Amino acid sequence: MDSHLFLTTKEAETLYRYAKDLPIVDYHCHLSPKEIYEDRPFENLAQLWLGHDHYKWRLMRQFGIPEEKVTGDAPDFEKFCAYGECIGLAAGNPLYHWTMMELSEYFGVEEPLNRHTAPEIWEKTCQVIREKALSPRKLMTGSRVEKIATTDDPAEELTYHKLLKEDDSFPIEVTPTFRTDKLVNIKAADYPEYLHKLSRTSGVGIRDFDSFLQAIQKRMDDFVAMGCRFSDVGIEDFPGLSGTREQAKRAFLAAKEGKAVEKQEYEAFLFYIYRFLAGEYRKRNMTMQLHLAVTRNANRPMFTALGPDCGGDCVGEPIPVSRMIALFNAVLEDGGLPDTILYTLNPAMYMTMATAAGSFRNLHLGAAWWFNDHKAGIEEQLRLCAQCGHLAAFPGMLTDSRSFLSYARHDYFRRIFCNLLGEWVNKGEYPDMESAKEVVRRVCYQNSADRMK
Amino acid sequence: MDSHLFLTTKEAETLYRYAKDLPIVDYHCHLSPKEIYEDRPFENLAQLWLGHDHYKWRLMRQFGIPEEKVTGDAPDFEKFCAYGECIGLAAGNPLYHWTMMELSEYFGVEEPLNRHTAPEIWEKTCQVIREKALSPRKLMTGSRVEKIATTDDPAEELTYHKLLKEDDSFPIEVTPTFRTDKLVNIKAADYPEYLHKLSRTSGVGIRDFDSFLQAIQKRMDDFVAMGCRFSDVGIEDFPGLSGTREQAKRAFLAAKEGKAVEKQEYEAFLFYIYRFLAGEYRKRNMTMQLHLAVTRNANRPMFTALGPDCGGDCVGEPIPVSRMIALFNAVLEDGGLPDTILYTLNPAMYMTMATAAGSFRNLHLGAAWWFNDHKAGIEEQLRLCAQCGHLAAFPGMLTDSRSFLSYARHDYFRRIFCNLLGEWVNKGEYPDMESAKEVVRRVCYQNSADRMK
Amino acid sequence: MDSHLFLTTKEAETLYRYAKDLPIVDYHCHLSPKEIYEDRPFENLAQLWLGHDHYKWRLMRQFGIPEEKVTGDAPDFEKFCAYGECIGLAAGNPLYHWTMMELSEYFGVEEPLNRHTAPEIWEKTCQVIREKALSPRKLMTGSRVEKIATTDDPAEELTYHKLLKEDDSFPIEVTPTFRTDKLVNIKAADYPEYLHKLSRTSGVGIRDFDSFLQAIQKRMDDFVAMGCRFSDVGIEDFPGLSGTREQAKRAFLAAKEGKAVEKQEYEAFLFYIYRFLAGEYRKRNMTMQLHLAVTRNANRPMFTALGPDCGGDCVGEPIPVSRMIALFNAVLEDGGLPDTILYTLNPAMYMTMATAAGSFRNLHLGAAWWFNDHKAGIEEQLRLCAQCGHLAAFPGMLTDSRSFLSYARHDYFRRIFCNLLGEWVNKGEYPDMESAKEVVRRVCYQNSADRMK
Repeated sequence: MDSHLFLTTKEAETLYRYAKDLPIVDYHCHLSPKEIYEDRPFENLAQLWLGHDHYKWRLMRQFGIPEEKVTGDAPDFEKFCAYGECIGLAAGNPLYHWTMMELSEYFGVEEPLNRHTAPEIWEKTCQVIREKALSPRKLMTGSRVEKIATTDDPAEELTYHKLLKEDDSFPIEVTPTFRTDKLVNIKAADYPEYLHKLSRTSGVGIRDFDSFLQAIQKRMDDFVAMGCRFSDVGIEDFPGLSGTREQAKRAFLAAKEGKAVEKQEYEAFLFYIYRFLAGEYRKRNMTMQLHLAVTRNANRPMFTALGPDCGGDCVGEPIPVSRMIALFNAVLEDGGLPDTILYTLNPAMYMTMATAAGSFRNLHLGAAWWFNDHKAGIEEQLRLCAQCGHLAAFPGMLTDSRSFLSYARHDYFRRIFCNLLGEWVNKGEYPDMESAKEVVRRVCYQNSADRMK
Repeated sequence: MDSHLFLTTKEAETLYRYAKDLPIVDYHCHLSPKEIYEDRPFENLAQLWLGHDHYKWRLMRQFGIPEEKVTGDAPDFEKFCAYGECIGLAAGNPLYHWTMMELSEYFGVEEPLNRHTAPEIWEKTCQVIREKALSPRKLMTGSRVEKIATTDDPAEELTYHKLLKEDDSFPIEVTPTFRTDKLVNIKAADYPEYLHKLSRTSGVGIRDFDSFLQAIQKRMDDFVAMGCRFSDVGIEDFPGLSGTREQAKRAFLAAKEGKAVEKQEYEAFLFYIYRFLAGEYRKRNMTMQLHLAVTRNANRPMFTALGPDCGGDCVGEPIPVSRMIALFNAVLEDGGLPDTILYTLNPAMYMTMATAAGSFRNLHLGAAWWFNDHKAGIEEQLRLCAQCGHLAAFPGMLTDSRSFLSYARHDYFRRIFCNLLGEWVNKGEYPDMESAKEVVRRVCYQNSADRMK
Repeated sequence: MDSHLFLTTKEAETLYRYAKDLPIVDYHCHLSPKEIYEDRPFENLAQLWLGHDHYKWRLMRQFGIPEEKVTGDAPDFEKFCAYGECIGLAAGNPLYHWTMMELSEYFGVEEPLNRHTAPEIWEKTCQVIREKALSPRKLMTGSRVEKIATTDDPAEELTYHKLLKEDDSFPIEVTPTFRTDKLVNIKAADYPEYLHKLSRTSGVGIRDFDSFLQAIQKRMDDFVAMGCRFSDVGIEDFPGLSGTREQAKRAFLAAKEGKAVEKQEYEAFLFYIYRFLAGEYRKRNMTMQLHLAVTRNANRPMFTALGPDCGGDCVGEPIPVSRMIALFNAVLEDGGLPDTILYTLNPAMYMTMATAAGSFRNLHLGAAWWFNDHKAGIEEQLRLCAQCGHLAAFPGMLTDSRSFLSYARHDYFRRIFCNLLGEWVNKGEYPDMESAKEVVRRVCYQNSADRMK
């Protein structure tokens, strides 16, 4: 890997030299606190790369690799070689960049991975993994990580967060995020069981709507006690234009009894509960994250066979701007908006979302998400932030990843960010290098660190 | 400011040398004819920049500056310094470019504005304003402005337009634009009062639908007598797929009585009245402007506190292409489409709008509007014009501004335009410099001048 | 024309040197098998360029050229000069590029066409046409064409395909495509007549729904016997979320009787019939093409005067992702998806479509279509392919054209493709030249050739 990767001007190089050593605050990821706590060494790169990574699975399927070598029972070496052949021809895919960067950063491999080089690179990486006894904690501490926020269900015990908090030998702070997907999805067939679980974990018997809200508050306090600073939600649906307490209560009680809730009533419930949650976040000075416009488990037979998060998801329809505004106004009139970060999977709603956010204080456009998390997508999101908002107020990069190698994505982001900014300085469009450095410091570190304080 | 700003090839420089001295015909702005007539000298740059400019207000809020220093009672110097700090870090924002260009063009300030330089730049600009006694007319005549079109309500007397027309000492022609937002918004609570006002100004007592249409025709003639060549409308809603005279009449009469008009009936009214207006524009050889896909006053508490045009607006949903086509066909079948310019705030509808426009004669895609009026947005709009239409037929740049310093935006546009064209010539994609100059002449001057004749 | 056109790095040059001599497999075009069979020499460039090309007609109308010189009775020379004036100022329009490339490739004309050069270029091209006796077959064989697929209605006899198949003197394989627009459009007033025609051609008397499906199968077999490898559909509407055989049958029988079919029933019919067709394509190992989000004949008076395909079409609304998914799942559950290529006219649905495609095997994003078929549009589509899918699996370029000069578009595509890939190699983002060549080979030739086998 070329050390100048993505850096095309000397101003970009200058900014990147400054950016690359800033600590990493990864305020949104899907790492397992259990795996971090247990810290088992890895066996090989197939396990590390292909064990959970549905980004790679999708690419392999698109290239025509049989499922056996994707999520099936083929030996690790064969899977690795199949991925090697596939990635070797995947020009322009972010996985190509990440693969190249991870091979260079963690394994000292500088030649391109392709069908010819795969066996040799397999050997070399196996050797490095063995010799260094690479494990979750080793990868994290080796990546200048300062703090992370995992993604956690309100009904879950925070067992491993507690254990990690008590473990003085590990210097990285691992905090939970209050992720409400299951909490708000009253359409789920197993919602009554979910409420039982929430009752148990919260210690609040959920008998009615009031006690439901109390259980939520209790869990939120528990999360905050474990260092939680963020909430998150990423369901397919978005609240309707309004929703009263009465409507929300009725929908909730039906769901509690295992009865069907129709779409309109469900959307009224969502309106009320999002509004309630936003108020609770504000009181606790938490940041609210909304992940919008996603379609999950689009491939039905694959979902049946492999479950969620297997590579069958896609971009959803744009959320109508009127709905976003209705929610923001309601929360604002309740007493103020919490610090809020909006992400969308659908770039066709970038402009409505970004300009709606710009009409309110405390709303920010979040980093390029998932299918948009690649060089062109990051640049598009950064330009949008800069054009429709204030770039120095951008909350910054996150990995959103299940992999311990993904800290390379912060390097990826920093290169792309410094290159964009450096190009503006270079061309005289932003002829103020000292200010540019300050923007880099805020976006690559300070804004995330402030939110995680 | 670098004199080569945005010019990256020698062909771009050649074209820009030709473009920069062309006169400015600003066929759409929000300047006050009263302020032009009275011509009071300005006091300081805070007043000039932060008095009306909701673009700057939004940016300051996004950066976290308290409202006191945005629209509140803080002293002018403090507001200026707050803006200085904010803009200094606003890399990539068009306000950064405009600020830099206006400081250079009008005040000879060449260093970047930021928190460190703000006090010194305040002093220097105050001195220039005092010494030159900068006033509306001085700024206009100093900017090679030939003609402008302001934005005016049909129910307004054109008092200051008349006075300016009679004032031989001022060489710049100031014409009104027939802006029908209030005229067509029959859902407004104060619509009956609006009709009273329109009755008074037009001298036509509005008793029924016929006299309403007559009053409109009368005012249109009055506007034309004052040099009006353009109409405009920029409401949130768009006409439905059809609307008969009977529907329109019923909706109008209900509104006249202060009764509620429901959405569908309102959209039928819009269909009829847009069609009627288009026909009247065609008869008078006026250009019809449609500003589409806007959401106004999205932030309810801010609207209550500060009123409209305070920075709480955002992009609206795409207008369905079927609705655009239905309207265009109806007007075409009535006898022909007037010369028409279509603007949209939502780039997600650029392709439907541009290709719908391309299916009819006399329809043109207008300049990048508002949240799209920045370097990347202008380039996107120009590419679209070039790809889906005919670039030399593009009606050209306008300021859409409330500020007398905004003529710098014509320079901004000309640099970006010449750079794009110059790049094509340079790369051999448009290897015809003489034709390129002709395109520059048409887009930067002739097409606007022809419409303002 | 500069031989380095669109090639900006030495890596791009290297890749293009390799790409330019690959044979052309044009798997989707609108050439007339009759014209190929009869092979009449052309008279002049006005006939070749302006006879059928609604792309050029639109551009001329946008530039303000009277209809007489567009589709009217003006002499060929006048039409050519009008086009020359128009294209000379059409910077950034793909027609500018194609015009330049076709003049250079087929006529040795290297100077730009504009109002000054038009008469001279007319003379020169007339001379070349006369001297070489340019005809359909001569243009095709001179362009390294290996195979093509035309676009054909299931109710048509394949008379000229048969004659061409029997003609050993012509080495290029001309195969039909099973284009179902008329077959599925049960809303058409002349649908009963269409069924009569289909009965005749298929030899299956269509008395009920069963015999309708049998007639389709029969024709599909006939097409396959003539070398057909592709199906296609490009209507405005898209199937609803579901549709039973009963619903489809009811809708069909009503249409057969000349009765109106309402929108919802029609969409249920579409769901059933698309699903049925997909299954039949899979059985025959055919590729299914879906052309989405189009609005046809938008300009009503022009359609009345000139008929379809006269330049009055435009981009349609995005197809909801839920509808796409519902269809794909149904076909998948029936036994598997056929090899499928998805095209859209509306870039606002690129992300939903591309990521929905990425959730299923055998679905591919097709080449930039129609209004998107220009340099920036091709680059956008290629980036999308690379980012959300696997670039080496992209089915590749096609002309979609009615003109025998349009093979220049394959050169256009290859230059743009090699430039994009070459830039990545050059910048170290894809530092693997050998793999890049393999990607070129697959995308510019092999993937199309494999589908046409």
